[in-house]
Amino acid sequence: MLRIDGDRATTRPDTLVAEEPLEVRVAGVPVSVTMRTPGDDFDLVAGFLVTEGVIDGDDQLDTMRYCAGVIDGANTYNVIDVELRAGARPLDLSVQRNFYTTSSCGVCGKASIDAIRTRTRWPVAADPVRIRPDVLAGMPDTLRAAQRVFDRTGGLHAAGFFTADGDLLCLREDVGRHNAVDKVVGWAARADRLPLRGGVLLVSGRASFELAQKALMAGVPVLAAVSAPSSLAAELAEEAGLTLVGFLRGSTMNIYAGGARLALPSEAPA
Amino acid sequence: MLRIDGDRATTRPDTLVAEEPLEVRVAGVPVSVTMRTPGDDFDLVAGFLVTEGVIDGDDQLDTMRYCAGVIDGANTYNVIDVELRAGARPLDLSVQRNFYTTSSCGVCGKASIDAIRTRTRWPVAADPVRIRPDVLAGMPDTLRAAQRVFDRTGGLHAAGFFTADGDLLCLREDVGRHNAVDKVVGWAARADRLPLRGGVLLVSGRASFELAQKALMAGVPVLAAVSAPSSLAAELAEEAGLTLVGFLRGSTMNIYAGGARLALPSEAPA
Repeated sequence: MLRIDGDRATTRPDTLVAEEPLEVRVAGVPVSVTMRTPGDDFDLVAGFLVTEGVIDGDDQLDTMRYCAGVIDGANTYNVIDVELRAGARPLDLSVQRNFYTTSSCGVCGKASIDAIRTRTRWPVAADPVRIRPDVLAGMPDTLRAAQRVFDRTGGLHAAGFFTADGDLLCLREDVGRHNAVDKVVGWAARADRLPLRGGVLLVSGRASFELAQKALMAGVPVLAAVSAPSSLAAELAEEAGLTLVGFLRGSTMNIYAGGARLALPSEAPA
Repeated sequence: MLRIDGDRATTRPDTLVAEEPLEVRVAGVPVSVTMRTPGDDFDLVAGFLVTEGVIDGDDQLDTMRYCAGVIDGANTYNVIDVELRAGARPLDLSVQRNFYTTSSCGVCGKASIDAIRTRTRWPVAADPVRIRPDVLAGMPDTLRAAQRVFDRTGGLHAAGFFTADGDLLCLREDVGRHNAVDKVVGWAARADRLPLRGGVLLVSGRASFELAQKALMAGVPVLAAVSAPSSLAAELAEEAGLTLVGFLRGSTMNIYAGGARLALPSEAPA
């Protein structure tokens, strides 16, 4: 790597975040290829199957194994084959996955929200957890302190699941934000902790519709992001009873939905 | 939106970045649904078709139109139907799109790189452009100044194409990083500017394998990112002759591949 700083140029070694394809097969049939950071691959696959609505938990997973795929004489460890048990649903591989399309050619955010709502099995809206803002405010620092890899490469997204008291139960990282979340959800599935009641899913970047969807599919009541949410993420959160926190920085944060779960420091003026 | 700052809580209006699904149809057949920020939709669709290798330029595009899709009595403007001309290739909808898989169950980064190399039509490695580091260093400020929406919502990725002299020719924004790049590529396709020789594609975030692939499919010789690249992006850049710049901040930057295109301030010590 060549480092340029104003008038100086120096050559030096650098550590980059690893990115490799992972192919997921169900009973030998390829169903997905994603670019991911190697590590916690079984969590990633289990989480992917949960957030896609294929399984509800570990009891529908029979086995996961790396295929004996060999390129240039070495196993790539980039292909995982899954065997499912009774109760697992087929993966919808159609282009319109997650989307409702009318026969007369239409698709909209409202329809996307309805589609998620019908697929979610956990009663997230009924989760009675309450969180103190000062506890929420401390979570990004806890997450960053636990991100040893991040400090070295600066290239990884992180997702972590916290208790309402601010204890970090699981941290996962990936070059892809959605993969980091799937790894956390897969950890929960494999540890028989689904639904992820009573806690907070914190992501290091922005909160998109896709991440709000994944939180709901895992039964998480509070999704917090260091950066901005999208409009559709806020609408989905509002409709599904998910608390959505954005711009969680220092002692400040914005609550876009589900504010009743926050133990407020004082009454909010109208 | 409820704003919490330490002990104070206030309710106030907020602007969120819009996110809506866009369905792309080719001759009436759905081929893709992506979550995107509405705006520059025809650029997005044209760029998607270029970076997926379906078309080389505008001359293979016949028409693009919003379908008359109606939900609750209103056109959603979320479905675009494309008619292609002769010379366009079919879109590969298989799961292993872009990836080579051996019959004995293997997939790896090297194979992904080979797959891209065989699909790219432009001689990017032969592009003789040279860029001054101080010109590169000024590009992020130019991009940010042009991002009016960004300042309001904080939730949008940006991609811009600059000349070697630092002039911004095209800026596009989206909630998805890959969509912002596709919008820039589609702008170039529709303006009959492909391949995008002699300039710099700047992205506001990280440089993944996917973005390096899109740069190559558009014939861009220099990809610059404000944040980190991934290992596979650096490998692809090295193999394909793409200059890859990361951590472009202030007067500093890291060059991960193709450093010969940089008009260096001084000789770099070994």
